Amino acid sequence: MIDFIKHHPWQIIEEGFNPENQEAAESIFSLGNGKMGHRANFEEYYTGKSMQGTYISGIYYPDKTVVGWWKNGYPEYFAKILNAPDWRGIKISIGKQKLDLFTCKISDFKRVLDMKHGYLQKTFIAEFPDGKKIAVESVRFLSIVQDELGVIKYAVTPLNFSGEIDVLTDIDADVKNKDANYGEKFWVEVEKNYLPYPYIITETKKTFFQLCNAINVVFETNGDAFEPSTFKSFEREKYIGQKYRINVVENQTTTIYKYAAITSSLNYTKENLVEPALTILENAENIGFDGLFDEHKNAWEQKWLESDIVIEDDVAAQQAIRFNIFQLNQTYSGKDERLNIGPKGFTGEKYGGVTYWDTEAYCVPFYLSTAEENVAKNLLKYRFKHLPKAIENAQKLGFKNGAALYPMVTINGEECHNEWEITFEEIHRNGAIAFAIFNYIRYSNDTEYLSKFGLEVLIAISRFWAQRVNFSEQKQKFVMLGVTGPNEYENNVNNNWYTLKMASWTLKYTIESLGFVKKNHSVDLKRIIEKTNFNEIDEVGQWEKIIDNMYFPFDEKRNVFLQQDGFLDKELILAENINPKEKPINQHWSWDRILRSCFIKQADVLQGMFFLEDEFDTETIKRHFDFYEPMTVHESSLSASVHSVLASKIGEEKKAYELYLRTARLDLDDYNNEVAEGLHITSMAGTWISFVYGFGGLRIKDGKISFAPFLPNNWKIITFNVLFRGVRLKVQVVKNEIAISNLSDVDAEVLVYDSDFIVHANDDIVIVRNF
Amino acid sequence: MIDFIKHHPWQIIEEGFNPENQEAAESIFSLGNGKMGHRANFEEYYTGKSMQGTYISGIYYPDKTVVGWWKNGYPEYFAKILNAPDWRGIKISIGKQKLDLFTCKISDFKRVLDMKHGYLQKTFIAEFPDGKKIAVESVRFLSIVQDELGVIKYAVTPLNFSGEIDVLTDIDADVKNKDANYGEKFWVEVEKNYLPYPYIITETKKTFFQLCNAINVVFETNGDAFEPSTFKSFEREKYIGQKYRINVVENQTTTIYKYAAITSSLNYTKENLVEPALTILENAENIGFDGLFDEHKNAWEQKWLESDIVIEDDVAAQQAIRFNIFQLNQTYSGKDERLNIGPKGFTGEKYGGVTYWDTEAYCVPFYLSTAEENVAKNLLKYRFKHLPKAIENAQKLGFKNGAALYPMVTINGEECHNEWEITFEEIHRNGAIAFAIFNYIRYSNDTEYLSKFGLEVLIAISRFWAQRVNFSEQKQKFVMLGVTGPNEYENNVNNNWYTLKMASWTLKYTIESLGFVKKNHSVDLKRIIEKTNFNEIDEVGQWEKIIDNMYFPFDEKRNVFLQQDGFLDKELILAENINPKEKPINQHWSWDRILRSCFIKQADVLQGMFFLEDEFDTETIKRHFDFYEPMTVHESSLSASVHSVLASKIGEEKKAYELYLRTARLDLDDYNNEVAEGLHITSMAGTWISFVYGFGGLRIKDGKISFAPFLPNNWKIITFNVLFRGVRLKVQVVKNEIAISNLSDVDAEVLVYDSDFIVHANDDIVIVRNF
Repeated sequence: MIDFIKHHPWQIIEEGFNPENQEAAESIFSLGNGKMGHRANFEEYYTGKSMQGTYISGIYYPDKTVVGWWKNGYPEYFAKILNAPDWRGIKISIGKQKLDLFTCKISDFKRVLDMKHGYLQKTFIAEFPDGKKIAVESVRFLSIVQDELGVIKYAVTPLNFSGEIDVLTDIDADVKNKDANYGEKFWVEVEKNYLPYPYIITETKKTFFQLCNAINVVFETNGDAFEPSTFKSFEREKYIGQKYRINVVENQTTTIYKYAAITSSLNYTKENLVEPALTILENAENIGFDGLFDEHKNAWEQKWLESDIVIEDDVAAQQAIRFNIFQLNQTYSGKDERLNIGPKGFTGEKYGGVTYWDTEAYCVPFYLSTAEENVAKNLLKYRFKHLPKAIENAQKLGFKNGAALYPMVTINGEECHNEWEITFEEIHRNGAIAFAIFNYIRYSNDTEYLSKFGLEVLIAISRFWAQRVNFSEQKQKFVMLGVTGPNEYENNVNNNWYTLKMASWTLKYTIESLGFVKKNHSVDLKRIIEKTNFNEIDEVGQWEKIIDNMYFPFDEKRNVFLQQDGFLDKELILAENINPKEKPINQHWSWDRILRSCFIKQADVLQGMFFLEDEFDTETIKRHFDFYEPMTVHESSLSASVHSVLASKIGEEKKAYELYLRTARLDLDDYNNEVAEGLHITSMAGTWISFVYGFGGLRIKDGKISFAPFLPNNWKIITFNVLFRGVRLKVQVVKNEIAISNLSDVDAEVLVYDSDFIVHANDDIVIVRNF
Repeated sequence: MIDFIKHHPWQIIEEGFNPENQEAAESIFSLGNGKMGHRANFEEYYTGKSMQGTYISGIYYPDKTVVGWWKNGYPEYFAKILNAPDWRGIKISIGKQKLDLFTCKISDFKRVLDMKHGYLQKTFIAEFPDGKKIAVESVRFLSIVQDELGVIKYAVTPLNFSGEIDVLTDIDADVKNKDANYGEKFWVEVEKNYLPYPYIITETKKTFFQLCNAINVVFETNGDAFEPSTFKSFEREKYIGQKYRINVVENQTTTIYKYAAITSSLNYTKENLVEPALTILENAENIGFDGLFDEHKNAWEQKWLESDIVIEDDVAAQQAIRFNIFQLNQTYSGKDERLNIGPKGFTGEKYGGVTYWDTEAYCVPFYLSTAEENVAKNLLKYRFKHLPKAIENAQKLGFKNGAALYPMVTINGEECHNEWEITFEEIHRNGAIAFAIFNYIRYSNDTEYLSKFGLEVLIAISRFWAQRVNFSEQKQKFVMLGVTGPNEYENNVNNNWYTLKMASWTLKYTIESLGFVKKNHSVDLKRIIEKTNFNEIDEVGQWEKIIDNMYFPFDEKRNVFLQQDGFLDKELILAENINPKEKPINQHWSWDRILRSCFIKQADVLQGMFFLEDEFDTETIKRHFDFYEPMTVHESSLSASVHSVLASKIGEEKKAYELYLRTARLDLDDYNNEVAEGLHITSMAGTWISFVYGFGGLRIKDGKISFAPFLPNNWKIITFNVLFRGVRLKVQVVKNEIAISNLSDVDAEVLVYDSDFIVHANDDIVIVRNF
């Protein structure tokens, strides 16, 4: 737990500097613009504990994997998004005294992450050993309008002296990943130069991505630009820096503007990396800081119109939900279908910054409702493009005939994970990828996606399921052996209900999709059948056989589906009976003890009921919730949100609220004592889901958007915004009144508590909840 | 497969030199004397592929472990027996030309491992680039009489010149383990000196073991010792060498005797390592090569009297069984209760040279029958001494009240392994350790062992089992969840029959042992109860409840116990249907595919029926054999032997013989294409078991030794020797006649085909098998 973050509806605020909080703050105050991002490391020298982190989405390195005992089928490498060259340094010194926030006397420190406008501001007064004092104010942002541009405005004011100070501005490409498996550095220098602006081109080993980092530094006093008096250059391998000596006058502010352009070989040929970077810098200097800042702030205001949630009279909750939305929007913009969302976004190295099923299960619903269609669609196309690799991956494991197993962890479609019980067995990820196609089409009505992209993926996944089950002579049913479900506190179990259910659902949806495409896009169907060598009669025949004869573990006595075979052989104990000193159990219990216990890390059966809610009546969901929730320890950040939505659904409002709180301020309050490693970006989408799907009751029913909102007891007014098929709706709940505003120029049809309403263009309706 | 080993009843022979075979030969021609051993590396320079290996039992290093994903409870290190300083170098050069067997022209190469007398002989002619030829003969042995002494006789004869040759004799302590996890070297030099003999003292990092390697080199021509003409010394960190220049005369032989003494801080104080080494060397020079060789050869002849097996008219089989026995006797002498048997003995680095359950399950029966009582007893005491660590190990995993979990892999009692499914789950090792106590006492009648050592171990293991099971409300039985049985092609299963059976058996045997000790050694019982804080009423009460209500998975239809819950959900396929190109499946199938298959790596249910044979009638064993053997792929070297014994038992003689062959020449023919890494020492004990327990039908019944021999069809006469309670028996089978000779001075009572016979001292009986 941490408690240094001040509450504020639009800002994350830290007042007073405590080096012990620095690494946590570096995560929390992170900046990103979808294409790149960085932790809130200081521009200044800092010799205290710090985890430097600057990341460019899509720039990765296949680090040689580490494994205790090799198993056949393991991949050779674990791809990780690289810590990239750091262009942020603005390092002040007076004579031999460095402005180091760890060693200088710091007062009046304040750090603000402004979420409304997407910038990081830092102010402080530093006293040097010789008694000289300076006031510093820096403002930093990564433009979401020009997403290859980073900007810093750095203002220094001497408080008790006039004289010379030195300013070193640099690009440091000699960075390494803290999590490098063999301590290796991944970047090599290609070229560096000073003119017309200092830049370095670096290249990654093995993957040969190139980056150009170029900077333009402008000095100003009293509104007048000036050229600094002295000039020294420093360079060494992968580093370039220029030291300026400037004269400062007591109580007069000198401002340094540092513009950085970062271009990469993802978007330009290697021969043509420098020129666009220099153009960006020239342009930036021409527009100037204020102009760049304004266009950036305006763009953020636009984003908020589509995604803001307002919780009145509860600043902590208000701040938390905006923080979740803000970080999601910083991490992924949806402009580039080659990019995806790492569990820690641009805020840390853990999990390698690569793609997990979190994207499909958690992030897709968020972007579907808060951004234009293309954003979620690009997340889906990412997987479509990886289909050949997923087929190859399944082949490596012995599957045939175009069956696909999507990787547990990937950046380029190849599997990176290497724990057998996860890599080979946590195959439910295939189900989430299939479900995301359904979910996207259900929401967007973009049925063409199916014939163009989705059906091929569905066929390949269905082929996998059909081979992954086997017919049990004993049970006279199809069973699925050797599986790890979403609850990773069980490994290598037989007949995980969730996985069976998602497999069975995928088969059904694929057959249904085949029918749809046959009817509406027969030319596409022909192409797909040829491409996939699909034998409709045999394959669909087998799928139907499997659907009709799938085994689902079930307890007659309790009338509940069982998480897996043998679950009832366990001692069923309530999580509330765990010794609080032994929580979280994953930090206190040996792995075998955890596995043998009944305790559930994250939603498993309930995850299935969340996805496939329409197949279960409320009574059934309630029975399962009542059985599983008390055994769930929520030691995954992805768990509480799903339970919260279901709790809302079944009317357990108190539980829904309690579970929501657990996810909403997870990082701001650092419940798990790990925020220093980075933020839980993908679980932030879960927080949003638990609010909008839970409290807001958002669903898509028969092609219509549907709400069933309620106001948790502790709140007086809540408001949320969603986009649905081009229509922007604002939903406000005050006591039992629900106001829905249509902020678009077309009429919208909505369901509220299952009743139909028309909300006219630029109009609103108010509905009173009568129960 | 390899085929360069010539068949011979007493020798392992390689004729003609092929560098491609060198690493395999280095394993096969290994030498050992129970205290130390080495691979058959050349004395000479050798720049071809080679794996240098010299090992001292008990000298280990806790190498920092490597693991992909850390699990709570994993140990921090993996101990490995170290590659130790190499004292064997005798390196010839003529001018600048080195005698390098990889670069010189080698002819008439012959290498012989003489098993009867325990030495390695090598002869060859080498032609140098300038045309000079020399003949070399070396004889090398590690004395089993003076087990800190190694001896080399190295004879050089110039064939077409007279002149000078240089001889470099050295100690090279700058060795490293090929399997070092981080490429680290584990030895540091403490001291080196030339006088009176060259020696180096080295110390291991972290564990601080010290070794003194000292050498004495004696030159001789025509039977006369001489001091070489020139003398040069080389030294560098961890290396000492002396180069002698000697005059040689065409066709006259110069002989170099190199005596090496190796003393260690396991047996001396660190201050007193040099003196005993020098005494050994002085003594060696005084006795001389022939005297040392004679006492060594005599000792080997004695060993063979106790353990030889003769298979007449089948040289390949004869050579193989002797090779197995020879290597086992080279590996472990039973003189030191701190030592144990690594799976590869002194022949390679794999598995770290540390202790597995192989010792109790396979090696104990061999040493019980082929060596004096104390040898097997010391193997048991090794575990007794590790009991506190085993209790600590269980505590770390959450077990209480003095429960012990012996490690899967250990050298000092601490767990070294770190695959969760094995480290935490392959707990059946506890059962084998308990069973070895029973087996030792059954064989030796050393019932005092129980009160002195055994009972404490049994109580601690029983306490573990009692906590490791839980009561299933569903089954109304005690179950054991999350287990890996001996068949490691299943992981984390519920209710592995073998483990349940061994657990239940341990509880019963512990209760029985408590009764015995109470009756016969009540003072000891009091001591044990106090020491272990044992609550007889409660604990035995609980154990009885568990015994009475233990669940065993069972198939009513087939009337067989099932390897684990859910086994019948698998597709039951015969191993003979596996595509031969995909065998062994562990090299061709992904791990998940192996896990989901029905294929069995090694005896599991059948392992239990082998141990606890008396609990099952032959019909039952046959039914289980017929069910499991066809699904068993025997991809562990420990598997075929157990199946072979059971096949003999149920009269499947052909199968017994076929399975025996699979284990007997495993290394000599290199079936698994891995002999270069080292020999399968512990599985050699399995080979012996399959012969003596299988074909010989050895059992202990009601305190008597019992035989039920038969002659496999392909053989005419077989003979084997066993020791039983101080009596040496020789059993010979010729067609249907069984001759048993009592080679001792006391009468012996034996059972043959369940009939009682007395074999008088120094007499024999002949029995005719009438069925």
